[in-house]
Amino acid sequence: MRVWTGSGFAPLTGGVDPMDRGFLIGDGVFETLRLQNGALRRAEAHFKRLKSACAAFGLPAPDQATVQKTAAEMAAEAGLARAIIRLTVSRGPGPRGLDPVADPKQFILLSAAAAPEPPRSVKLHPSAIRREPSSLTARFKTLSYADNAAARREAKAAGADMALLLTGAGQVSGADAANLFWIADGALFTPSPDCAVLPGTTRAAVIALARARGVTVHEGAFAPDAMMTAQAVFITNAALGVVAVSALGGRAFDPDAILLAALRDAEEAGR
Amino acid sequence: MRVWTGSGFAPLTGGVDPMDRGFLIGDGVFETLRLQNGALRRAEAHFKRLKSACAAFGLPAPDQATVQKTAAEMAAEAGLARAIIRLTVSRGPGPRGLDPVADPKQFILLSAAAAPEPPRSVKLHPSAIRREPSSLTARFKTLSYADNAAARREAKAAGADMALLLTGAGQVSGADAANLFWIADGALFTPSPDCAVLPGTTRAAVIALARARGVTVHEGAFAPDAMMTAQAVFITNAALGVVAVSALGGRAFDPDAILLAALRDAEEAGR
Repeated sequence: MRVWTGSGFAPLTGGVDPMDRGFLIGDGVFETLRLQNGALRRAEAHFKRLKSACAAFGLPAPDQATVQKTAAEMAAEAGLARAIIRLTVSRGPGPRGLDPVADPKQFILLSAAAAPEPPRSVKLHPSAIRREPSSLTARFKTLSYADNAAARREAKAAGADMALLLTGAGQVSGADAANLFWIADGALFTPSPDCAVLPGTTRAAVIALARARGVTVHEGAFAPDAMMTAQAVFITNAALGVVAVSALGGRAFDPDAILLAALRDAEEAGR
Repeated sequence: MRVWTGSGFAPLTGGVDPMDRGFLIGDGVFETLRLQNGALRRAEAHFKRLKSACAAFGLPAPDQATVQKTAAEMAAEAGLARAIIRLTVSRGPGPRGLDPVADPKQFILLSAAAAPEPPRSVKLHPSAIRREPSSLTARFKTLSYADNAAARREAKAAGADMALLLTGAGQVSGADAANLFWIADGALFTPSPDCAVLPGTTRAAVIALARARGVTVHEGAFAPDAMMTAQAVFITNAALGVVAVSALGGRAFDPDAILLAALRDAEEAGR
């Protein structure tokens, strides 16, 4: 674990300040990137999103070049050919309560862990927790992920792998830690950004790859029933890429659908 | 700052683990209690709520007697006659990601700070961030308070003191860190629990005090317009008690309304 010193990253000693607002109230943002072949995948897209998140929070955005260099060093030191890099930007220490911190001392951490092998498929469990599109956590990767963690807990307890969440209005939003797509009648469907959807880097790549292959992509506000006629369903995130969904609740989907496999391969091959 | 050792609280050394899930994803809950005259106010109500929150999160609930004893010691050591005690129950360290932690090592902190003098009144600013009633953060005090912090930031930038938030459906929910009441035609109004309302201990006390005085209390789902005919508005939380709202957006309210003052005095006098 490395901490930003103001001019670079140094090993973190002494842990996180117990008055850190990222700890006390989830006041901060993060990014999760995959590092392979010594480089961060889709770094431009991740840092563009991070800048938006930092702007929304009034936090400093770390400099991309230094993060890339340090992340590559950390992965190499740990002997990781494929790594998941997490960049955490916390408000830093402050008094209790919600008032803005007067003279914030930024607290930025960088960690590297082995990238998981993606599962062949995942089962989704519908969560009772809904997402509010105006919430910062719906639009950015924030340190306030308690609802997503609770939905995952509920899914695991039900024998599934990930949770599916709807918006407060009852439209499909996505998985607890991934975006969601489905294939029906040769077209691709995915919830639109106004459905409490994190603007995923892998999501964007898949949409572009599909369109480049002449596949119609429908972004919209869909009722859950719209998924029930799908031939195939999949989730996307930076850590796992494209992963087939084998079942949602009691409904099974084809994890080997040809278009799904094609998109998965194309996404994996992409930079 | 003290940390739970398993058999009591000891001074925290070494900070918070950077892999603490309360830090990384806001996976935990907290309570804020006022300590005065050597005792925690409304301790039974706070610990009942904490038990519910811990149950919802699958976290261990700290033992009330030890917390009370330690909190009183901490306040005495710091020379605080009135203190705000924060009890934080985090998931503890775990790997990155949302999967449940296999063998969680609880991480429970206790802090004491001087209780603030309540302001004479506060100005509220309407936030664009809405609350989803099914969110854990709407129903419990969680470590995932980024939205409330953002709403506060927005309010302060607009020259106000606290933010007012609505539910996703556009009904009045409450302030960013307090419950909300208003007085109209001699009756008291407050959003009902299904309006993304934290079941506040001070809120409950005020409702009981009002009813004991023969004041009709309406708990319900109200459109924001319902507040506009109010003679007086106030917020409640454990740290501040009852505080008059002098203005919401462009509308002014009477911070010295007789019933408001009576409820404030009665609440302050209550245990």
